[in-house]
Amino acid sequence: MTKQLITAADMEAIAVGGAYLGTGGGGDPYIGKLMARTAIEANGPVRVVQPEAVADDALCVPVFMMGAPTVMVEKLPRGDEALEALRQLERFLGRKADALICVEAGGLNSTIPFAVAAATGLPLIDGDGMGRAFPELQMVSFTMHDISATPLVHADDKGNSAIINAVSNLWTERLARVQAIQMGGASLVAAYPMTGAQMKAGILRGTLSLIKGIGETIAAERVAKRHPGVALREQFDGRHLFTGRVVDVDRATTGGFARGRAVLKGIDGFAGRTFEVAFQNEFLVARGDGGQVIASTPDLICALDADGGLPVTTEQLRYGLTVEFTGLPCDRQWRTAKGLELAGPGYFGYDHAYEPVEALNPAA
Amino acid sequence: MTKQLITAADMEAIAVGGAYLGTGGGGDPYIGKLMARTAIEANGPVRVVQPEAVADDALCVPVFMMGAPTVMVEKLPRGDEALEALRQLERFLGRKADALICVEAGGLNSTIPFAVAAATGLPLIDGDGMGRAFPELQMVSFTMHDISATPLVHADDKGNSAIINAVSNLWTERLARVQAIQMGGASLVAAYPMTGAQMKAGILRGTLSLIKGIGETIAAERVAKRHPGVALREQFDGRHLFTGRVVDVDRATTGGFARGRAVLKGIDGFAGRTFEVAFQNEFLVARGDGGQVIASTPDLICALDADGGLPVTTEQLRYGLTVEFTGLPCDRQWRTAKGLELAGPGYFGYDHAYEPVEALNPAA
Repeated sequence: MTKQLITAADMEAIAVGGAYLGTGGGGDPYIGKLMARTAIEANGPVRVVQPEAVADDALCVPVFMMGAPTVMVEKLPRGDEALEALRQLERFLGRKADALICVEAGGLNSTIPFAVAAATGLPLIDGDGMGRAFPELQMVSFTMHDISATPLVHADDKGNSAIINAVSNLWTERLARVQAIQMGGASLVAAYPMTGAQMKAGILRGTLSLIKGIGETIAAERVAKRHPGVALREQFDGRHLFTGRVVDVDRATTGGFARGRAVLKGIDGFAGRTFEVAFQNEFLVARGDGGQVIASTPDLICALDADGGLPVTTEQLRYGLTVEFTGLPCDRQWRTAKGLELAGPGYFGYDHAYEPVEALNPAA
Repeated sequence: MTKQLITAADMEAIAVGGAYLGTGGGGDPYIGKLMARTAIEANGPVRVVQPEAVADDALCVPVFMMGAPTVMVEKLPRGDEALEALRQLERFLGRKADALICVEAGGLNSTIPFAVAAATGLPLIDGDGMGRAFPELQMVSFTMHDISATPLVHADDKGNSAIINAVSNLWTERLARVQAIQMGGASLVAAYPMTGAQMKAGILRGTLSLIKGIGETIAAERVAKRHPGVALREQFDGRHLFTGRVVDVDRATTGGFARGRAVLKGIDGFAGRTFEVAFQNEFLVARGDGGQVIASTPDLICALDADGGLPVTTEQLRYGLTVEFTGLPCDRQWRTAKGLELAGPGYFGYDHAYEPVEALNPAA
């Protein structure tokens, strides 16, 4: 990030860029923007630092929301739950955090760390644990680098909290998820406490800069009356998967997740074709005519409003909305055996083998 | 308790007496006895002390199992989970426990505190929080005395654990229960850390002596070839509710509890009559012919094998078993407005008003 100090004015681009890489999940960018702007206006700008600027023995802590983003639209965080989770984690560890980490891209999860950074004065590291959003908390590069998710602290808006210690990051997910459901469907979390050395080994670099750049590209293209999808595909070797109108949405909040599928009928160059996308908080699998997979987790399936050009989250999908879907290659770590075990199609119960979105959609 | 040192040989009476007051729940007395005997044989006898012998500023901690007792029959505790929970609670509080408390009567929950007391050398206080067993962890006299259930620590056999802090004891129950289900249906718990002064205000006195005495009465009557039910009813102003043969059992482990109902056809003096008992871990409501309530939570519905005279737990109910049911008056605290709000019929979703078992069954 060329600019080291992030102001309230920057949060628009970060929320929008985060929502784009959030692939339908990671929370509503409007709520995230408001939370972070309020915190920055009250406390001053946030310092973003590169991983290499952090000492090897520093304590680095990701802060984030877990739960169904559908819930967060109706039930706004009180604002200080994430800070409370961080403070409890610090007390439990007997040590203050030196830097904060963003765990994933997303409208809410890219902005909550800025809100906590503003409130605490801590720097935020330019990177994240996914390079996108994923629905479960073990699905981070940190797991691939044997960094424990615990102690994990999470807190709700009522004043309840828990400190979880588990034998694996998958067990942490299970034990935290059931409580997040009880807490009203979502909780605010401080977890994966790690040293600076661990962070440097595990973090996906530059994600915050990337997110901000994407948000700025989307804004600039919209001002120029161009749909931002074209520029973003050029920039990231993306594939235009589909543009169409939602004709069916099937959705339920179950097991603490927003799960479902949407069917679209093509418009413009996709007229006469159909498209189906399945999601669990995030878009997971896109299928074209005949049901063949055209993009699959862990690759990114990014959605923009076909008219306005802004990111579309899964909870915004509704009958009649026109959406443009783009497939983007995921970080190469997700394409390794470890990465696919964590977040490949098999983990989510699909029986198709993963193939890179570039292979499924050779450039025209 | 006249005898201050409890040896391995005493555990038979304590497990059996605990199971009787456990009213069908509180776990299997055989497993509880084995756990406590092993710990006492390895570490020496357990000191039982009266509440008044404990200093006002002492740290007193109940240790117990939560979950469906059906699970504990198949999945034996590893043995040190309760100790692990206690040690984690001590670390969290930054203070060592000075005495242990038994939270409820029950085949397992009256004996686990002895196992932990033997392993730690800590004294065990002669009393408990229920004077019987109840299925949910907020259902203790401590709640009536505004003693917080949290911080609560629970641990499983795999090495997972959590420290819960909640705004009420009901919230603690919710947040711990869902994790206990994930942990395999049951967990071992250290909770309700309290001062000696709080303990003296909240504890139901003499429960361990009572349990041991009941176990000894059952053993003596069996040796004398008399069914123990008669002597126990005389001793505690109990009512003989029914003796019959199980003709139907309907049971499911749902929401972390063993829930169900059993129907019995009368034998001996009850021939020609029917009886139905509903349970959630513990027996909650007994109905006679025509469905009228003849005993109801919070009063105790105690079951003994009609032939052998040993306590019968809900998970032991099976077609053809002959069972003798006795209604015992609960501790007077449970009959107050606060007590009935916590564990009266309304809490469990029944629409009958509570009436004391003595009023429902006037002495013949």
